[in-house]
Amino acid sequence: MPDHDLLIRGGTVVTAADTVRADVAIKDGVIRAVGHDLGSATRVVDAGGLLVMPGGIDSHVHLAQDVVPGPPMADGFESGTRSALAGGNTTVISFAQQPRGWTLRASVQDYHTRAEGKSHLDYGFHLIVTDPTPSALSQELPQLVDEGYSSFKIFMTYDAMVLNDREILEVMDAARECRALVMVHCEGYDAIRFMTERLERAGKTAPYFHGVSRPQSVEREATHRAISHAELVDVPVMIVHVSGREPMEQVRWAQQKGLKVLAETCPQYVALTQEDMRGLWDDGLDGGKYVCSPPPRDHDSWNAIWEGLRGGVFQTFSSDHSPFYFEGPSGKQNDKARSSFKWVPNGIPSVETRLPILFSRGVGEGRITLNDFVALTSTNHAKLYGLYPQKGSVAPGFDADLVLWDPNRREVITQDKMHHGADYTPFEGQSVTGWPVMTILRGEIACEEGRVLNAPGAGRFLPRGRSSAWG
Amino acid sequence: MPDHDLLIRGGTVVTAADTVRADVAIKDGVIRAVGHDLGSATRVVDAGGLLVMPGGIDSHVHLAQDVVPGPPMADGFESGTRSALAGGNTTVISFAQQPRGWTLRASVQDYHTRAEGKSHLDYGFHLIVTDPTPSALSQELPQLVDEGYSSFKIFMTYDAMVLNDREILEVMDAARECRALVMVHCEGYDAIRFMTERLERAGKTAPYFHGVSRPQSVEREATHRAISHAELVDVPVMIVHVSGREPMEQVRWAQQKGLKVLAETCPQYVALTQEDMRGLWDDGLDGGKYVCSPPPRDHDSWNAIWEGLRGGVFQTFSSDHSPFYFEGPSGKQNDKARSSFKWVPNGIPSVETRLPILFSRGVGEGRITLNDFVALTSTNHAKLYGLYPQKGSVAPGFDADLVLWDPNRREVITQDKMHHGADYTPFEGQSVTGWPVMTILRGEIACEEGRVLNAPGAGRFLPRGRSSAWG
Amino acid sequence: MPDHDLLIRGGTVVTAADTVRADVAIKDGVIRAVGHDLGSATRVVDAGGLLVMPGGIDSHVHLAQDVVPGPPMADGFESGTRSALAGGNTTVISFAQQPRGWTLRASVQDYHTRAEGKSHLDYGFHLIVTDPTPSALSQELPQLVDEGYSSFKIFMTYDAMVLNDREILEVMDAARECRALVMVHCEGYDAIRFMTERLERAGKTAPYFHGVSRPQSVEREATHRAISHAELVDVPVMIVHVSGREPMEQVRWAQQKGLKVLAETCPQYVALTQEDMRGLWDDGLDGGKYVCSPPPRDHDSWNAIWEGLRGGVFQTFSSDHSPFYFEGPSGKQNDKARSSFKWVPNGIPSVETRLPILFSRGVGEGRITLNDFVALTSTNHAKLYGLYPQKGSVAPGFDADLVLWDPNRREVITQDKMHHGADYTPFEGQSVTGWPVMTILRGEIACEEGRVLNAPGAGRFLPRGRSSAWG
Amino acid sequence: MPDHDLLIRGGTVVTAADTVRADVAIKDGVIRAVGHDLGSATRVVDAGGLLVMPGGIDSHVHLAQDVVPGPPMADGFESGTRSALAGGNTTVISFAQQPRGWTLRASVQDYHTRAEGKSHLDYGFHLIVTDPTPSALSQELPQLVDEGYSSFKIFMTYDAMVLNDREILEVMDAARECRALVMVHCEGYDAIRFMTERLERAGKTAPYFHGVSRPQSVEREATHRAISHAELVDVPVMIVHVSGREPMEQVRWAQQKGLKVLAETCPQYVALTQEDMRGLWDDGLDGGKYVCSPPPRDHDSWNAIWEGLRGGVFQTFSSDHSPFYFEGPSGKQNDKARSSFKWVPNGIPSVETRLPILFSRGVGEGRITLNDFVALTSTNHAKLYGLYPQKGSVAPGFDADLVLWDPNRREVITQDKMHHGADYTPFEGQSVTGWPVMTILRGEIACEEGRVLNAPGAGRFLPRGRSSAWG
Repeated sequence: MPDHDLLIRGGTVVTAADTVRADVAIKDGVIRAVGHDLGSATRVVDAGGLLVMPGGIDSHVHLAQDVVPGPPMADGFESGTRSALAGGNTTVISFAQQPRGWTLRASVQDYHTRAEGKSHLDYGFHLIVTDPTPSALSQELPQLVDEGYSSFKIFMTYDAMVLNDREILEVMDAARECRALVMVHCEGYDAIRFMTERLERAGKTAPYFHGVSRPQSVEREATHRAISHAELVDVPVMIVHVSGREPMEQVRWAQQKGLKVLAETCPQYVALTQEDMRGLWDDGLDGGKYVCSPPPRDHDSWNAIWEGLRGGVFQTFSSDHSPFYFEGPSGKQNDKARSSFKWVPNGIPSVETRLPILFSRGVGEGRITLNDFVALTSTNHAKLYGLYPQKGSVAPGFDADLVLWDPNRREVITQDKMHHGADYTPFEGQSVTGWPVMTILRGEIACEEGRVLNAPGAGRFLPRGRSSAWG
Repeated sequence: MPDHDLLIRGGTVVTAADTVRADVAIKDGVIRAVGHDLGSATRVVDAGGLLVMPGGIDSHVHLAQDVVPGPPMADGFESGTRSALAGGNTTVISFAQQPRGWTLRASVQDYHTRAEGKSHLDYGFHLIVTDPTPSALSQELPQLVDEGYSSFKIFMTYDAMVLNDREILEVMDAARECRALVMVHCEGYDAIRFMTERLERAGKTAPYFHGVSRPQSVEREATHRAISHAELVDVPVMIVHVSGREPMEQVRWAQQKGLKVLAETCPQYVALTQEDMRGLWDDGLDGGKYVCSPPPRDHDSWNAIWEGLRGGVFQTFSSDHSPFYFEGPSGKQNDKARSSFKWVPNGIPSVETRLPILFSRGVGEGRITLNDFVALTSTNHAKLYGLYPQKGSVAPGFDADLVLWDPNRREVITQDKMHHGADYTPFEGQSVTGWPVMTILRGEIACEEGRVLNAPGAGRFLPRGRSSAWG
Repeated sequence: MPDHDLLIRGGTVVTAADTVRADVAIKDGVIRAVGHDLGSATRVVDAGGLLVMPGGIDSHVHLAQDVVPGPPMADGFESGTRSALAGGNTTVISFAQQPRGWTLRASVQDYHTRAEGKSHLDYGFHLIVTDPTPSALSQELPQLVDEGYSSFKIFMTYDAMVLNDREILEVMDAARECRALVMVHCEGYDAIRFMTERLERAGKTAPYFHGVSRPQSVEREATHRAISHAELVDVPVMIVHVSGREPMEQVRWAQQKGLKVLAETCPQYVALTQEDMRGLWDDGLDGGKYVCSPPPRDHDSWNAIWEGLRGGVFQTFSSDHSPFYFEGPSGKQNDKARSSFKWVPNGIPSVETRLPILFSRGVGEGRITLNDFVALTSTNHAKLYGLYPQKGSVAPGFDADLVLWDPNRREVITQDKMHHGADYTPFEGQSVTGWPVMTILRGEIACEEGRVLNAPGAGRFLPRGRSSAWG
Repeated sequence: MPDHDLLIRGGTVVTAADTVRADVAIKDGVIRAVGHDLGSATRVVDAGGLLVMPGGIDSHVHLAQDVVPGPPMADGFESGTRSALAGGNTTVISFAQQPRGWTLRASVQDYHTRAEGKSHLDYGFHLIVTDPTPSALSQELPQLVDEGYSSFKIFMTYDAMVLNDREILEVMDAARECRALVMVHCEGYDAIRFMTERLERAGKTAPYFHGVSRPQSVEREATHRAISHAELVDVPVMIVHVSGREPMEQVRWAQQKGLKVLAETCPQYVALTQEDMRGLWDDGLDGGKYVCSPPPRDHDSWNAIWEGLRGGVFQTFSSDHSPFYFEGPSGKQNDKARSSFKWVPNGIPSVETRLPILFSRGVGEGRITLNDFVALTSTNHAKLYGLYPQKGSVAPGFDADLVLWDPNRREVITQDKMHHGADYTPFEGQSVTGWPVMTILRGEIACEEGRVLNAPGAGRFLPRGRSSAWG
């Protein structure tokens, strides 16, 4: 009887710290050893010339998060996780959004129903707290954190989700009690509404004005505010999807002051700009495809984001996958959307292209190291969101979640290669070097050369422990 | 017939730029010439050994601003301006606070009634906008700005006055339309309420916890927010009563970015600390005497404020005179105030001690120049609040508003020397070098050696023009 | 008999703080009064529509500073001061350069000889210390400071003048003893030589490479070093001719730390760029015309310099007039100069265009106020270099040194309008709005509409007192 | 026959990224596998309750670096590496100092002779370039870099080693040619001499004045200068032994600008202060024991160093072990040393206490993570100094250099526990939690519970490859 179930042989194992030639032996879905001369295995995969890295963990994806009224998302759990898997990921953390008036518990159950039996990879849920009643904060939240929902997100904008400052403080205070990690979407609600109305009055309704309605100063202000509230309450805070120089500098300033401020950025902030939103429907152009929040910025901000990635300002690089259709009555260019940018659904599909974009522009172009890549796409997600040491590294005892990566494969991103439900990719035509060739989930080859091999439901729900941000 | 009404002879004339030995000739209440051999005069004042400076302009005083329900102020216009005059001032700008539900016009008229016939020196009004209805902003405000109320203040805290972000943006937008100067009280309402309740729940209700309930981070956050809103609207903004290092650094950062951000600070932020609030009623101590908002900070903040005064971060040094009684049922130590710091009236009497404190600690101790002193206490107030070139310098054509100042006079500040209505001074016992010996209002000797010589009503209302902040 | 010798009537008097409609009465070369109804005068000048400002003080000009071996300067005292006068100046401070091996005393006497009987306006000398022997520092310097040479300049580059760090520290220490003001030319000698040789080896010898050989980092490093030495010795220091963002930020950083660091900038740093040096001799182009040290930078640096001018980083705006011929065997394009940028004489003629450039680009384009203009071009020079209160303002008792300025006069700068000895102006073709129409030196009309009316020798040597930097 | 030579069983393996329960199998001195169920071994070590970390690499130690004239070092290779081993290290990089007039080759050979047969652990050499002749730079250096001396150090102070700026630039240029890593000792020679003479003239000769003679501003200036030179040459630079806030902020500023600036700090900068140098010989006190350069600073600087360690400013934490005797005629308190601080030998013994101090104050007190500890004490040294992937991690293929660490062991540092040659430890009496219990060198148990088990000469010379700083 062979020693192991699976042996990954001859590759270069990469962790957040090390890069070594070594084999990986897997048994019962778990990594048993990393080394040489590890014995026999039922199946052997030749990883010669490939990097063997922990599967991507995308801690910021929106799946099946349809909200009524509102346009349908282009991805439920089935297509969304299929896309993630094809992009080299083995875990996603999606959101369970509390509708106002609902309990958190009911909201979580609802999202479990949405995911049940559909996921191609392992998944967890962050709560989205929109209705921070006393019972939600003092009774539900501690229980849910204990049960494995150890992080939650709050919003400083969006009608359906925005919390006021008092609520933010209360929610942070509750997080402190139960050692949960608070993620904050930092854009100022009132400022955006003010700008939106001003632009609409001036007839500036094209998608491009989405960006104008929420400039960096609006994100910077909200970032400073969220940081200040967290400082007052004395709680770690994760600033998600930082888009540009101005908010990045707020995060860096806070970190240098010694505050426990964490930050995330996304592919769209190093690969798209506000100019991409220039397109007008009537021109047959497609500015709306790039509408997301915060919006893409400019090249100076790309540089700032790289500064932050290189300098430790950002711990995680996530997709903020939030897919909508472009065509059709429920798409980004429907009649309502044409009437004003404010009706264009906010979000883009990006879960499948996150790793190639960071690898190519980051590692390939010498801006970050290979080890940084692993930290930013997997290890730090696992640590910060309570999945470590189950997920996030290639080391004994970890789930055998691996991506085999060809560092030299040159690909052009096109919609026909994508596995997501959306009818376009905002990164269409971008060339990348480096591509996932095989994804292994708990010891099973789940995807190979773009072919998804496992069945919906193969992925498991992941209860999560305490964030490393709490020490 | 003499050439002039009054000749100030033999003094050293100080302006915001120059220091020269010269006489000042006055006719019909106006300065006619500064020079030598200026001819004869009906009355000659010997200013030998004295500095001849423009009378202090205090652009931030609260007089007769009684709000129901609430404790009575200790100064109406009569005692308040008497105190100001004795302290070397010739102009104050007080506030006309709009009660919610009132028009701005009615509010202004109300305050005119409160001031009528009572003032010992010239005065203007800033509006306080608490109810920014569309008609208030689009109709009343432009008219009132035209009529001489060219600045107004808004609050980011206090139940009776707080505006939300949307309102702040609308008010700033209205200011942009009519080129008015917006002054902002920057402290975060929700954060203060959150902290206050937390402290009260913990039984921490002594005056000292007033400071704890509104730490620098709360002021810093609101400062950053106000600056960001002004940046979005593209309007100059005056951050009033900056208390310490953290908000000062926000202002400096904004100025270095090229934003039109102005700032004011006050004597309490270089002469009092949070430790002064330590006293408890029951100990016979008196922490409540020092309760004002923002609260006094610490010595590092004193240094930061001096950095800002020396380095041009601050344009004005005002008193934020806001006097309340200490003793008695309506005083700072009444039963309600004893139950919680949140009921201690916020504010201190300081209009009379502003100039001596800045002169002594600033000029006397070598931190600022004599010309800086004039700029910070008079000239810049006149320019920024639309009183220039009528007020704010010792130069031909200006109102003959002068203070004759003995730079070597050593005094100890005590309540018995004060002319205000309050029953204490928070600067009790502080030694200063430099003291006003004569104050001249439009050519009339209005105060001499602490004796107020003119009658209530001698002061006139000052309609004000456009702020120099608008270029 | 008239009351006054001269009356300037109907103008707008501008000081570093104030702008007022007033007449100026002059007697015996001194301003007697500023005001209205000042009486009769022998001569009356109508200043209607004009600004009456203190004559420009240019505290950084090089006249007759011919050094053997080396190319002749294009201006001695006669043409140089004629040019200065025509440009609205009434005082210059030139340099008395110590040749190594000479005493300071002999050097000063030499320069007095060079200036004797030639100057059209009042002048002083800064020493240039190149040979800081013990006797020069401990004996000569104190005496010379007492005699009116209260400032001196040292160089961190140039073969003939460079001091090493030890010498710089000793010289600063000597300055501390006698309360002199040290001016420092901050560029790193070794770095420039290193770069120059590297460029020459690569055949990069055109004038453009002058700029490449001394990039901002080289100036920034030397600026940091000079500041650090002054900090160690505890002495004020004046960083002259700051050229761009990087050194400006060093100065600002030091000022914010509380160090007594002063700074100067010049027209070339807001009106020329490194691209101006692109021209090659052989193309008939003229890059060499713009060669000065530090070299002109880029538009980001223009912005930084304006930030510094607006924000108080810079106290003085000087010309660094250092004129050389362009044509001819001793000109900037002679054979040696053609062989390498390092032989192109460093310096440009600019004493005549300093005021129009700052006025037009600064006041006219809304970057600084009119009062800032006076401070930057006259008042601060007088204060910092010990000429105050004799020079630097329009106020009683000051020398009647005035420039009458037409703020609306539009001119194009061309060589044919210039009064200097050089055969070109680097600002050729630049349009300005605002121009001097009359210059008055100690009550005498010395220049009117570009016609110099006084005789060489009309200007007097000015012994100078202690710098205000010493408190 | 057993599968492995040695099995470390049951410990917690820590790398710069990961912390996992795993065994480590070793064969032929190399790590063969990390995992579970790894098979049999000749020898099994039970690591239950212990951390299994890569052995410390101390990239900054001075051993046998006796310079004539000068006091003898207290450690040659035998005692120095014995001490290092006992302190949990398995590799040191010492210095081969070029005496002026010597070739680099001869210098290296000399140091090989000094080390030959003596070392208890593996060692490499950095060159110290003191005489950068053209042949040294263009001929010797490239060869030596190829042979494994891929880094070298230069000094900005010390009579015997100081280079001037031109030399520094040339040396950096040579480093660029051969992709070597330049380490710089940043303190300003001239400033120190200036201060020293001033202090001596004032009779301030006690050890305490060592610190006064080289304040932070002197280190900051040299740091800025070194960074600027590296920027000009476009070469990575390692700023060694950064002591406090001011130089740390220079490094951070440079890193944020995008410059490739690396930095090191040491135990003395988080565990000693300038006050420790207060002692006077005649009092029986011992200030001289703490004299090193740069000198220990203050608590604010401790905080700054921790900021830098936490925030990624520092990549390495080294000892700068530079041991001298305290007692005796060649000790720190000999007659010459008593005459002036400038004769007190600069340096302290610290190679043995580096790890416990960082572990206890860093990991134990929550300032850095366990993984940071490994990165700062081992992995980053290996990467930056060209020893990776031979040294620096616990991973397959690496030399089996391990330290088994008891995280809970509480010890008091005392001289009697030390293995160094010096007669004191400057950390005497400091309590630490966390201590090495076993050190394994290439698979051999070299030290156990403070008993050194291997023989002098067991350590090998390590030729080193290219620094990761070169990408």
